[in-house]
Amino acid sequence: MALIVQKYGGTSVGDLDRIRNVASKAVAEHKAGNQVVVVVSAMSGETNRLVALVDGLSRFPNLREYDTVVSAGEQISIGLVSIAVENMGIKCRSYLGWQVKFITDSTFSKARIREVEGFRIRRDLDEGCIVVVAGFQGIDDMGNITTLGRGGSDTSAVALAAALKADRCDIYTDVDGVYTTDPRIEPRATKLERISYDEMLEMASMGAKVLQIRSVEMAKKYRVPLRVLSSLEEGTGTLLTEDSEMERVVVSAITSDQNEAKLTIKGVPDRPGIAAAIFGSLAEANVNVDMIIQNVSENGETDVSFTVSKREYQLAMNVLDEQVKKIGARSLGGNPNISKVSVVGVGMRSHSGVAQRMFSCLARENINLQMISTSEIKISVVIDEKYTELAVRTLHEEFELEKSLADRISA
Amino acid sequence: MALIVQKYGGTSVGDLDRIRNVASKAVAEHKAGNQVVVVVSAMSGETNRLVALVDGLSRFPNLREYDTVVSAGEQISIGLVSIAVENMGIKCRSYLGWQVKFITDSTFSKARIREVEGFRIRRDLDEGCIVVVAGFQGIDDMGNITTLGRGGSDTSAVALAAALKADRCDIYTDVDGVYTTDPRIEPRATKLERISYDEMLEMASMGAKVLQIRSVEMAKKYRVPLRVLSSLEEGTGTLLTEDSEMERVVVSAITSDQNEAKLTIKGVPDRPGIAAAIFGSLAEANVNVDMIIQNVSENGETDVSFTVSKREYQLAMNVLDEQVKKIGARSLGGNPNISKVSVVGVGMRSHSGVAQRMFSCLARENINLQMISTSEIKISVVIDEKYTELAVRTLHEEFELEKSLADRISA
Repeated sequence: MALIVQKYGGTSVGDLDRIRNVASKAVAEHKAGNQVVVVVSAMSGETNRLVALVDGLSRFPNLREYDTVVSAGEQISIGLVSIAVENMGIKCRSYLGWQVKFITDSTFSKARIREVEGFRIRRDLDEGCIVVVAGFQGIDDMGNITTLGRGGSDTSAVALAAALKADRCDIYTDVDGVYTTDPRIEPRATKLERISYDEMLEMASMGAKVLQIRSVEMAKKYRVPLRVLSSLEEGTGTLLTEDSEMERVVVSAITSDQNEAKLTIKGVPDRPGIAAAIFGSLAEANVNVDMIIQNVSENGETDVSFTVSKREYQLAMNVLDEQVKKIGARSLGGNPNISKVSVVGVGMRSHSGVAQRMFSCLARENINLQMISTSEIKISVVIDEKYTELAVRTLHEEFELEKSLADRISA
Repeated sequence: MALIVQKYGGTSVGDLDRIRNVASKAVAEHKAGNQVVVVVSAMSGETNRLVALVDGLSRFPNLREYDTVVSAGEQISIGLVSIAVENMGIKCRSYLGWQVKFITDSTFSKARIREVEGFRIRRDLDEGCIVVVAGFQGIDDMGNITTLGRGGSDTSAVALAAALKADRCDIYTDVDGVYTTDPRIEPRATKLERISYDEMLEMASMGAKVLQIRSVEMAKKYRVPLRVLSSLEEGTGTLLTEDSEMERVVVSAITSDQNEAKLTIKGVPDRPGIAAAIFGSLAEANVNVDMIIQNVSENGETDVSFTVSKREYQLAMNVLDEQVKKIGARSLGGNPNISKVSVVGVGMRSHSGVAQRMFSCLARENINLQMISTSEIKISVVIDEKYTELAVRTLHEEFELEKSLADRISA
């Protein structure tokens, strides 16, 4: 008998038919002899509706009250799923974040989970119940309601799976797994059977958007086997584990992100404190910086390039316009029409030549590289936005990702 | 400095403009130097929407889960009211039933309040906050969410006022007070400045529909001064207290109820256990019985008449059809086209002749009395439904209710 945590997002509980579908999936797992805990989000659209109500009253609401309002949606969906399960003849109990105690810090609207008290759930499971738990929300030491930030239900599910020492955490979503690249760009993209936490982390941060990145970090930390699969189609999805089965495969996936813009400060005096001055001013303005590149200096000067989200591009330009004069840099330039294309794979750790192969492949298509950044398992390049699809398809073919895993390993 | 509990129903928080209106009323009371606790219902339509979702899944839902779903609405409205208050520059904190602890029994969907823990609210009030509390809901000893039944927010407000020893509990609603009779029937109906708990209890049970009857019972028990007033218009409303200022006035109000139907069982054998057999079978079928009249028996037989709600009339007829044969009664008859008209007033206790005056007045209009029932402060008659308006207007004039209180006392 295994203990399975299932997590369903807003789309999967979007109406009564889908709620019945969720219930029948949970009941099927229960009838297969397993203990089942279901974590659900609010019905799709509900949380947006609640956020809009708050926005209609205040641009800067008290965040304690904001959390109280926006966490009301899960209360509805857990009760409805529970009623649907009982209709199928299985005992079921639902719990809110404060009831089974997802204890968090008091950072309203983006609280971090400190501890999950699972004993009430264990008792119910031992009594043969299916248990339904509200995602996205918790309670702080003072008894206030907190929320974990958008997409927080994934993190709730993984945290609960870790606390209950679950055998697996199944994240049901509207895609049937993790792909070698975006199928809308490269129709020959194939679904990955397995992927490592690290690969997924590199992909998630680049817009793969399948899982909240915090949930993957937590799954990695507590070694929770995490499966991503579709709530609407049958299939085994993609399993995230410590080590990829594809370790012998160099590249697992290609990702692209067109939501970034590039800024370059030229002629930056190369002395201590300058980087802090630049990025400190951006941090104060709440601009998130992604890639940062600084070349070695020449003649006591250097150039600094970095990317921010397109949405914050103009704000970043305004903030730096002043800062550039203050630090005595020569000029500020920017380009919002870029995209970031990355090659991801744990295999890179032990294989040389991946970067060179990637660069040659893009050069053959006359795609100029504006920035390059690498990690142990990822190489990202910034290119002109209009070449995004071409770059993704070319790289997908170069690394033979359309072939099955078996074919690639034997090749 | 007084402590005022204000309660607003769903219509009063039905949209963001109305929520701002509620906030400004609370802030005005606060700025007048008083401590203010606001109890709110869900936004109008919200609880109905939630009930409909549950109905879509199950005709007989697990009531624990039902309560979890239908209590989600107040969570939204308390947060929104709190944000609107803070927008006006006053610190505000909202609490759900489980947070300030409305401890109830475990009768899901119609729980009774056992105790209200007010210390968190007191602390916030002492810090200069306005406090907003969710009506309608509580928590049982096991930490389950419970609800108090429809209209339960009135009861929440009064229970909280009692626990906090509030100086007054103001129930804001969509009418501006309690009237001498229904103004839609008698345009000369006048608003009562004061009324006793007992008079209000007699009126509420007869369809005055201004306050949930449980809340009046509780206000009477804990001697909470209760005021009914409009959330949309200015005015002082009607104050409910232990003793009516109108004690010297015989009749305070005329009420009518057209939602009842009459049943009569003729030739009932007059022996012990018969009444239990009749009303037991109705109770089993969940039929609520209102007035019951049984005349003295003749020849070992008696007639029993009683009223039920029109909605349950056919069910009651079906249930009794069988029962009448079983107990050996002669016949069962019924009439759904009746109405109940009542004269209410604490003054009756010490004044004779009110009943006679009522009956003569109706007789002058040729209105036949089908049933008569009296309590210490109320006389009700059942008449043909079509005479309802005529009866109300005639009685209103007979007891001079269109005159001001001062005029009536001096008269």
